[in-house]
Amino acid sequence: MNKQTLIQTHNRIKPFIHKTPVLTSKLLDEIAGCNLFFKCENFQKMGAFKMRGAANAILSLSDEERQRGVVTHSSGNFAQAVSLAAQKLGVKAYIVMPKNAPQVKKNAVKTYGGEIIECESTPQAREAMANKIKEEKGASFLHPSNQDEVIYGNATAAMELLEEHPNLDVIITPVGGGGLLAGTALAVNQFVPNCKIIGAEPMEVDDAYRSLKSGKIEKNESTNTIADGLKTYLGDRNFPIIKTLVDKIIRVEEQEIKEAMQLIWERMKIIVEPSSAVAFAAVLKNKEEFKNKSVGIIISGGNVDLKNLPF
Amino acid sequence: MNKQTLIQTHNRIKPFIHKTPVLTSKLLDEIAGCNLFFKCENFQKMGAFKMRGAANAILSLSDEERQRGVVTHSSGNFAQAVSLAAQKLGVKAYIVMPKNAPQVKKNAVKTYGGEIIECESTPQAREAMANKIKEEKGASFLHPSNQDEVIYGNATAAMELLEEHPNLDVIITPVGGGGLLAGTALAVNQFVPNCKIIGAEPMEVDDAYRSLKSGKIEKNESTNTIADGLKTYLGDRNFPIIKTLVDKIIRVEEQEIKEAMQLIWERMKIIVEPSSAVAFAAVLKNKEEFKNKSVGIIISGGNVDLKNLPF
Repeated sequence: MNKQTLIQTHNRIKPFIHKTPVLTSKLLDEIAGCNLFFKCENFQKMGAFKMRGAANAILSLSDEERQRGVVTHSSGNFAQAVSLAAQKLGVKAYIVMPKNAPQVKKNAVKTYGGEIIECESTPQAREAMANKIKEEKGASFLHPSNQDEVIYGNATAAMELLEEHPNLDVIITPVGGGGLLAGTALAVNQFVPNCKIIGAEPMEVDDAYRSLKSGKIEKNESTNTIADGLKTYLGDRNFPIIKTLVDKIIRVEEQEIKEAMQLIWERMKIIVEPSSAVAFAAVLKNKEEFKNKSVGIIISGGNVDLKNLPF
Repeated sequence: MNKQTLIQTHNRIKPFIHKTPVLTSKLLDEIAGCNLFFKCENFQKMGAFKMRGAANAILSLSDEERQRGVVTHSSGNFAQAVSLAAQKLGVKAYIVMPKNAPQVKKNAVKTYGGEIIECESTPQAREAMANKIKEEKGASFLHPSNQDEVIYGNATAAMELLEEHPNLDVIITPVGGGGLLAGTALAVNQFVPNCKIIGAEPMEVDDAYRSLKSGKIEKNESTNTIADGLKTYLGDRNFPIIKTLVDKIIRVEEQEIKEAMQLIWERMKIIVEPSSAVAFAAVLKNKEEFKNKSVGIIISGGNVDLKNLPF
């Protein structure tokens, strides 16, 4: 992986993604005591950065592979991203989802033309089902966070942010499965290597924090967090990148996530997911550390159920 | 009033306002069957277009008048706009508010440095109190919608929209007190006279619709609408402008307002007030009329109580 790989990736996916805006807010700058630059992937197609990785993964397949379709297991943004990217490229998308997934998420996948394959609600069941589709249909499996093409695609959000604001002191992203943090780390390292990279994680699912401490991939025993995009854990493709390039992980409490989310909604008038608010919560928790710095924050997505808000 | 007046107004207030972005959404275009251009005054300072008129009204005062302060009666966005504009100009702002106004609105005014003067919750009481302050302090009274300087200030939102998109077929704004619609009509008439101007109004408070029919200013007997910024009625300064320049008023039901608001929140990921959604609701209600047209919509504001949402 070098600079050229990332530039090629960006050029490849450009027709399929939005170049999302970078927003600033004097009010939030005052509250945080630093200069914040929000890369708004909540305005990305299907509402999250996942579109970047999904598009790149499908675009990286051969014509023959594309004809056989793609399969993933996800009940979140990656399911929608794969469905939409596949639809745009005329590729069949099989989405393995637990039977009990919320109807609103199933509908979103259907809207984008994905075919839902239901399974029991265990990690084993969904992997078995994905494998079955892979074998039966010859479909290519796409992993939501632990696959090079997905990570490179995700890297393009930070590339665009740094292109507009090359003097950032630090970029903070939420960390769940690790795909966004690893991609961001690669982009920063290639293009603005003196910029720091920090991950932000709910205390309730602090597997990435513990993984960096122990040096091996840790998991979560429970996942009681409002940040529903961050319940997963790192993988063997992204953990080495994170271990090498990320400065640290900041952990935040649930109440801090909710407060950060409310501040963004009320002051910036934009809709962000709880997962997205985790990075801003990390800044508010460590004001001294970021004082007067230029801080980039990747707003990962804006898909929320308006009928179920934490305010 | 001519082109030059509006250009001077815009130049005068520029240092005190944001040039807000114009957003588009392919998804909403598909749903509506036309090309929509949303002028996002929800991203304006203090969260609404009212900042434009308030800033211009205070900037139009003499030094001596500014020293004596300004007074208005409002429990909504204009109260915040006057407070903030006055604060930025070092002018004292007296805001007459009913005793029973929501604490969240009182807090917003205080945040921006306005001094709240409480009164009973009747139109008579608030006017009497505003007059008292005017006499006692020598403060200049600023009207939320029925004052030339306020109307000219409001016109600058449409000016910016037309500067970016001069080929719009129509611009739609919500209509409450009439200040935004009248200002928009002046701007359109001066700069792109072949563009239509339409007002959008809740059926529950359709005073502007009835006023255009009867030729005189009508009021509302009840104000049972979620669009809390649109409960007021037209005035003698803005009604003649509206009567002369506005093509028509489209009325929408409460449920249509809620659905339009939810679509904007969910698809565009931006926070808009119910009042702002009224204009988009008018488009959705009259798809045939707007088919394939380029339609400008002024999103008037984004100040909502997150604890009290209609979803």
